[in-house]
Amino acid sequence: MESHPTLRLRVFDLNCWAIRYLSKRRQERVRLLGDMLRREDFDLVLLQEVWSEQDYSDLKAKLGSCYPFSHYFRSGVIGSGLCVFSRFPILDTLLYQYSLNGYPYMLQHGDWFCGKSVGLVIIKISGIIFNVYVTHLHAEYCREKDAYLPHRLVQAWELAQFVRHTSKAADVVLLGGDLNMHPEDVGIRLLRGWTGLRDAFVEATHFEGCEDGCTLVPSNCFTGKSELQPFPLGIRIDYILYKAISSFTVKCEELKTTTGPAPGMDVPFSDHEAVMATLHIQRQGQAAGSTSGTAEPTLADVVTEARTEVGAGLRVAQRQRYSSGRMAVLALLLLLVQAAAALGVLVGLDAGQPFPKLSFCLLAFLAIGILALAAGLHVFHTMEVKMLHGTEEQMRMALRALQERP
Amino acid sequence: MESHPTLRLRVFDLNCWAIRYLSKRRQERVRLLGDMLRREDFDLVLLQEVWSEQDYSDLKAKLGSCYPFSHYFRSGVIGSGLCVFSRFPILDTLLYQYSLNGYPYMLQHGDWFCGKSVGLVIIKISGIIFNVYVTHLHAEYCREKDAYLPHRLVQAWELAQFVRHTSKAADVVLLGGDLNMHPEDVGIRLLRGWTGLRDAFVEATHFEGCEDGCTLVPSNCFTGKSELQPFPLGIRIDYILYKAISSFTVKCEELKTTTGPAPGMDVPFSDHEAVMATLHIQRQGQAAGSTSGTAEPTLADVVTEARTEVGAGLRVAQRQRYSSGRMAVLALLLLLVQAAAALGVLVGLDAGQPFPKLSFCLLAFLAIGILALAAGLHVFHTMEVKMLHGTEEQMRMALRALQERP
Repeated sequence: MESHPTLRLRVFDLNCWAIRYLSKRRQERVRLLGDMLRREDFDLVLLQEVWSEQDYSDLKAKLGSCYPFSHYFRSGVIGSGLCVFSRFPILDTLLYQYSLNGYPYMLQHGDWFCGKSVGLVIIKISGIIFNVYVTHLHAEYCREKDAYLPHRLVQAWELAQFVRHTSKAADVVLLGGDLNMHPEDVGIRLLRGWTGLRDAFVEATHFEGCEDGCTLVPSNCFTGKSELQPFPLGIRIDYILYKAISSFTVKCEELKTTTGPAPGMDVPFSDHEAVMATLHIQRQGQAAGSTSGTAEPTLADVVTEARTEVGAGLRVAQRQRYSSGRMAVLALLLLLVQAAAALGVLVGLDAGQPFPKLSFCLLAFLAIGILALAAGLHVFHTMEVKMLHGTEEQMRMALRALQERP
Repeated sequence: MESHPTLRLRVFDLNCWAIRYLSKRRQERVRLLGDMLRREDFDLVLLQEVWSEQDYSDLKAKLGSCYPFSHYFRSGVIGSGLCVFSRFPILDTLLYQYSLNGYPYMLQHGDWFCGKSVGLVIIKISGIIFNVYVTHLHAEYCREKDAYLPHRLVQAWELAQFVRHTSKAADVVLLGGDLNMHPEDVGIRLLRGWTGLRDAFVEATHFEGCEDGCTLVPSNCFTGKSELQPFPLGIRIDYILYKAISSFTVKCEELKTTTGPAPGMDVPFSDHEAVMATLHIQRQGQAAGSTSGTAEPTLADVVTEARTEVGAGLRVAQRQRYSSGRMAVLALLLLLVQAAAALGVLVGLDAGQPFPKLSFCLLAFLAIGILALAAGLHVFHTMEVKMLHGTEEQMRMALRALQERP
């Protein structure tokens, strides 16, 4: 077998929790992160929740000498929060905004306003084409009754499809981000199974960091202790995934997570722990076989499971569309009745004016308000139904293709 | 040179103008279209503006025997309107919804509600991988003062980027659709230059149909005559574009358009004319060179021109964001003043009650209405600014890459 030189790549991934006005000690943490990244000299840095473009610009200015190439992905109202810093030139970029991402009226959660997306940057190192994806999926606010599961599954499916369709000319695929899914969740099994991506934590020869590779741990001073109560060790929701296409192999030599504040610091970089992987990439003598770690009957089961959840979400969305539509019709009827009554008074049919003017006006305004709100909700849930239906249909096609394969 | 067999592919493209309740003689036209497609036996049929899923299902049922494979792309409130019928198995699909697509409050135009997108279907014929794209860009309602130009340019750019990033493993790329751009417009020059796609009308050895290949002609009984007044021959806004990647060549042997009603019919299929191309695909002995017909200095000029227009759109969007934000603040101030006055009356500071109750309430409701509307607009225009800014930035990167190329 021929011997080819090995490329060693150090990748850093972190959900920075840098929400302006809301995140504690944000500027201090971003400054510390910048100092550390400059010191450590990674090859690739994938960040999420850098919501403020000013924070990105500050990091860019600080890191210019060691990471001369960078990209910030803009989307949604607040921004996608996604950015990449690289020691190697970025050849091209593409952004894909997920079609579903929570509800605009869930202001307390706010995911809708972020325009959650996946960003792709293409990088060439020593002649090897890397497709690097950075993403952040919808948060899970209540694991027992997760109202956002169908949306997160649509995102996981769109992420998998986007990676598959855009990485066909790549030699190596890297994906880093906060997927908001535990390792055994259906969404991550779907993503891994459908793309063939491997989990750096599972594959790592050497691991150092929080137990079980957790990235949201109770010992971090910024995490919500009550949410993590059922998980005394914490949860693992931040990932570095990879695979080699064509004639390359990728091995994860070492995986690390941060474990709270670095030595000499009194504050961790974020409420999440960072994930750091050292990957070895080598050209092989002959083309590697399929890197998919999932046998196809299992993959069909995973797609079926995901499709069932999306179907359940579809039925909920259809009910919400119906309710909001009915509410709009009722408000419209009320307005029509009021208009008829007002007309009656005007043409002198009912000179007694049985209803006080003020209440009459208040009622009309209420009806107009409800009509506008219900119509808006109806439009929104119609779009939701369309996208859930479309995804369910795509999954059905995928299942058929899996079953037809010899 | 080796001799390889030639594959002959007949492609049909039409904007069907099949809007439920609005389009004239819709069902009759869809039926006639189905009959003709069954008779003509094309290889690939790319349709736009099939807004009703029922129309799609009817076509699917009618065409099942000659086009056994089909896909309908769902998006937006009404649906993307895009669908594909194929004689060959569809291996995979992907939908990309454009990030900007008009304004929700422009109800009379309605583009926003359609969720304009590009759909990709992957087809394999005789071992050749075809990436087939079908799309429909934002309409142009006033050519002299085209308020939607920046949005259409963002769409053209996203379309070009999507084609480039997803077609790297394809042998042949085909794109059909209503691009709502004249052949000399900056958007189509950008799309062709940035992807290397060639225009079937320009390349065709033999042409038959409306003069200059026009697809929206005054002689069609459904077209708006006043809009077409400056163009006595009509305009060409529906295209079939193609290119070969890797070691293939594509030639357009024949291009046809419909010319109003077919013989024996009293109604055309749509307000648009259909475009029909016969393509010859041949494997070459050696890899073909770049198929880009545009020299790079020219391409840089086109990207610069497009970037200028997107920049102008960005400034308009920024002004609208500012105006709506200011309006929201003023409405909020009015509400606060009213709340203070009401509080004054309640605590007995002003027992005289200087303002009639009814007017007071009406004013409060008006302020709440304006606040909600202005806040919604502010959120929308903030997203618009983000996406225009992001596209401008991407175009800047592309320009730098073009200039740096040796």
